Amino acid sequence: MALLLCTTAFAAPPQSGLDFAKDGSLHFPREYRTWVYLTSGFDMSYQPAMQMGNAHLFDNVFVNPEAYRVFQATGTWPDKTMLVLEERNARSRGSINQTGNFQAAVAGVEVHVKDEARFPGGWGFYSFDGDKPATMIPVTAPCYSCHEEHGAVDTTFVQFYPTLLPIATEKHTLAPTYAKEH
Amino acid sequence: MALLLCTTAFAAPPQSGLDFAKDGSLHFPREYRTWVYLTSGFDMSYQPAMQMGNAHLFDNVFVNPEAYRVFQATGTWPDKTMLVLEERNARSRGSINQTGNFQAAVAGVEVHVKDEARFPGGWGFYSFDGDKPATMIPVTAPCYSCHEEHGAVDTTFVQFYPTLLPIATEKHTLAPTYAKEH
Repeated sequence: MALLLCTTAFAAPPQSGLDFAKDGSLHFPREYRTWVYLTSGFDMSYQPAMQMGNAHLFDNVFVNPEAYRVFQATGTWPDKTMLVLEERNARSRGSINQTGNFQAAVAGVEVHVKDEARFPGGWGFYSFDGDKPATMIPVTAPCYSCHEEHGAVDTTFVQFYPTLLPIATEKHTLAPTYAKEH
Repeated sequence: MALLLCTTAFAAPPQSGLDFAKDGSLHFPREYRTWVYLTSGFDMSYQPAMQMGNAHLFDNVFVNPEAYRVFQATGTWPDKTMLVLEERNARSRGSINQTGNFQAAVAGVEVHVKDEARFPGGWGFYSFDGDKPATMIPVTAPCYSCHEEHGAVDTTFVQFYPTLLPIATEKHTLAPTYAKEH
């Protein structure tokens, strides 16, 4: 039995992907498509008017499995959490699809990392160009202040993750700023 | 090292979920949200005119991890594959979101199962009502003929799974009917 489980563990893909280079840049998390999926949005925008014409965009959110399991148990994120936002272009007519949209090529990958020893605010944002290592987005960028002001749990947008919001609500881990807004 | 891997394996959630009751109905795959995510659609329809007014629908597709790993290696699905289609209602205004849509409550769960000993055509469809066991959709239903005629790989819509279509193309596992259409 123990042997069988070990074999399974060896055959499984590597799980967590928090891997910094010596210069402090973050390596691309190559295995994120096998991590735990949290949600997708379609043309979401926090700005009132976003005119994209006929172009549409999906965004898919993934988290490393270890962090997901801790969130299930505690309602918040452990150190070394990695949230990956993958943007994909949308297509409409293709194969037998007639209306609506399905996903096509990757348009961008952004990562939100929790590392309390590394980041003064606990979290860092990275935007990847292909699979090359990325440098941290400066803390003066609006993503930091927006997530701090509006994130439902620990500066993350758990309000848009339908399987996690009920857990945070039940475990009373919602940020006071978010709880006040709602 | 081996001990560490064993501990990890014990801590992991159960993986596969193909679990039939004695009467042949299929148990609800409770762990599917930790399986491998394949794609999401938005208001997809294979019919020309689908008028939904202001209501929108996401669909998310998941597969059991064992089947995903075999597909990565071979370009096709092994026996005991389970594909889960989760439909979720879409919301637009909520929290700080201004335009576009994000996912809300589950609107339905359908499953496509490969079990060559059980199903004459190799695959069976099930539609769940909550988490109660489901009986198989009769093989005369249009989902069977449509998937057989238009599925890119082994009666499944791999043409809409952007990470898998290149693998099937490279490994020459596309169905002749699909290859002819494109």
